[in-house]
Amino acid sequence: MDVYEAIVDKRDTRSFSPDPVSDEDLHRVLQAGRMAGSAKNQQLNRIVVVTDPDDRATLAESGKFADWVAGAPVVLAIVVPKEGGKAFDIGRMAQNIMVAAHGLGLASCPVTFHDEDRVRDLLGFPDDHEAPMGVGLGHPAPPEEEKQSSPRIPLDELVDWGRWKA
Amino acid sequence: MDVYEAIVDKRDTRSFSPDPVSDEDLHRVLQAGRMAGSAKNQQLNRIVVVTDPDDRATLAESGKFADWVAGAPVVLAIVVPKEGGKAFDIGRMAQNIMVAAHGLGLASCPVTFHDEDRVRDLLGFPDDHEAPMGVGLGHPAPPEEEKQSSPRIPLDELVDWGRWKA
Repeated sequence: MDVYEAIVDKRDTRSFSPDPVSDEDLHRVLQAGRMAGSAKNQQLNRIVVVTDPDDRATLAESGKFADWVAGAPVVLAIVVPKEGGKAFDIGRMAQNIMVAAHGLGLASCPVTFHDEDRVRDLLGFPDDHEAPMGVGLGHPAPPEEEKQSSPRIPLDELVDWGRWKA
Repeated sequence: MDVYEAIVDKRDTRSFSPDPVSDEDLHRVLQAGRMAGSAKNQQLNRIVVVTDPDDRATLAESGKFADWVAGAPVVLAIVVPKEGGKAFDIGRMAQNIMVAAHGLGLASCPVTFHDEDRVRDLLGFPDDHEAPMGVGLGHPAPPEEEKQSSPRIPLDELVDWGRWKA
């Protein structure tokens, strides 16, 4: 798929078919995440891949709006050091993962984990790390089950030229 | 360009030729930014496009490591409300912009603006907004002027399966 088409066509989607993600597709989306740039190329992000249904159910209970990840065949928890980890760089990595996934025909959405301790207890990362965000992905549910729209504001509302306009 | 190729091939680059970015290319990268998802589709990010050389020089003085944006033909300042703005969503938007730019043959890099007041004074956004990050972009300098490497850690160092490993 063309890069521009993949970027502008990607929508955050939280409904999945139960079909597993192939190892090959998973490898590609992880590589896409790996190649995201980071501040000073420090590469502080790490990814824990969660596919076990019970573990995904635990992650689904770890965020206020995370129910849907119980039905996502793959959940990628992005783990960062509390000291130095940057939400901007997590966002860059997540976007690479999700746009690459879309290019493979996979649906995806970010998820926020509000219950830091529960995620840590499950995944086993140390106290000086946290996993505030993750990505759920999988093959999309049939279109009749969920119609995504998420309309965007017009470009001239998003963009100002030279100076902020009132 | 293929989406996967664009994503894994993109490197953060801070050296540019003085050639201007065409209106068509700029429109496409802005559209790529516009289509980035955001928490609850709130779309709190706004973009101020800065091309004036004096204004870019001011932005270059607004960050600890921002010198290079004086030589970036286009600087996009991403403006968010202090209340509610999310660095994760800024990262998603910036990555869409930069991957789309790479697909068009444009070089780009994020920039951090540490001097919030200076950026606000220049661009004119209100006190309850900030522009912590931006993106500089343009046509790349000839390869002999800058050789980018930014090697990445191996995939098996980035990724754990099911549980965090020591």
